Amino acid sequence: MSKQIITVSREFGSGGRTVGKRVAELLDVPYYDKELVKQVAVETGFDEKFVEQQGEDASPWKNLFSYAFAGMGRHQPMQGLSADDFLWVIQCKVILDLAEKGPCVIVGRCADYILRDREDCLKVFVHANVPFRAERIVRLYGESEQEPEKRLETKDKRRRAYYKHYTGRDWGSYTNYDLALNTSVVGIERAAQFIVDVAKNPFAGTPTDHP
Amino acid sequence: MSKQIITVSREFGSGGRTVGKRVAELLDVPYYDKELVKQVAVETGFDEKFVEQQGEDASPWKNLFSYAFAGMGRHQPMQGLSADDFLWVIQCKVILDLAEKGPCVIVGRCADYILRDREDCLKVFVHANVPFRAERIVRLYGESEQEPEKRLETKDKRRRAYYKHYTGRDWGSYTNYDLALNTSVVGIERAAQFIVDVAKNPFAGTPTDHP
Repeated sequence: MSKQIITVSREFGSGGRTVGKRVAELLDVPYYDKELVKQVAVETGFDEKFVEQQGEDASPWKNLFSYAFAGMGRHQPMQGLSADDFLWVIQCKVILDLAEKGPCVIVGRCADYILRDREDCLKVFVHANVPFRAERIVRLYGESEQEPEKRLETKDKRRRAYYKHYTGRDWGSYTNYDLALNTSVVGIERAAQFIVDVAKNPFAGTPTDHP
Repeated sequence: MSKQIITVSREFGSGGRTVGKRVAELLDVPYYDKELVKQVAVETGFDEKFVEQQGEDASPWKNLFSYAFAGMGRHQPMQGLSADDFLWVIQCKVILDLAEKGPCVIVGRCADYILRDREDCLKVFVHANVPFRAERIVRLYGESEQEPEKRLETKDKRRRAYYKHYTGRDWGSYTNYDLALNTSVVGIERAAQFIVDVAKNPFAGTPTDHP
């Protein structure tokens, strides 16, 4: 059975998003990232910006400000759930629905965990060396007051904390992924090509095919 | 610069050793596993069996029995070092020397950590799903009193503990490896081919080659 759904988790600046887009292009299947954010925003009534920033990121200020940013006047979350937990529940639902719709690539948002029981899901983690990532974020997102190395550290720390909080797992641990690729060694294009190759033809033999 | 040295760390039964052998064959370079054990045995005076069993494996009985098994009557470890620590020191030396000699593939024994500062080292982690590994260990190493799933768990737990103790790092964490591949999804032959491709032509462009 080919892997119809590909989830891409990634370190900030590693090019995981570009890898995901390229994989979707090569396989000619939808790519969900912003689209997913939009759907979650519609279903929750939260602002898109809030969903984008808070949907995979455990910021220390989150609990304090989340209601203010979320525009909670418009919608009411499920009773007894915080804005964050409500967002998580809806995000899970949207991701499960998207996977049901058909082949696709989903970047980020703990999709590897949410779709962990699907046999047709290829789970990928993309990471890279610090200089590679630092150069990329400055080029793509511009300079900021913080040093790029510090920005990488902060962002990844928040993603790790979010992942741990909602999945109970360690972000980036090999047990969660079928492939973990360092794009600063593999290259973004080759990473995408390899993912496509494995997704199209996952190992179909029995273990006895190998010594 | 091509990656001359390839280290393969692996879950028990994942086929990491077969991957390593195949990579060495495809690249036509030496493959070190038993050979490494022999050299460490010569340099320490320990029995080969002892080096093989204890050189990457933190057994709970190790400290208790290590001297008895090691045949310590023949050689004296460095003053103030336990048999295990002495073995570690020599193992590091042997691995650093082998890497200096020229291109090669080294399986296990924390070589990824020992060679972490070499720019020409490609660090690979090989893992696989439990049914795939369980079938392999029974076929390759025979049945035992313990269930295969339990044997996998025990062996990996010991490797993890050994790695943590001597490197301070988490075994299998993506940060330690350039590639982590699930052979039950990728297949052993494709894993080897991909490693060879990356080793021969690691990403040589600048990050700006990619969006």
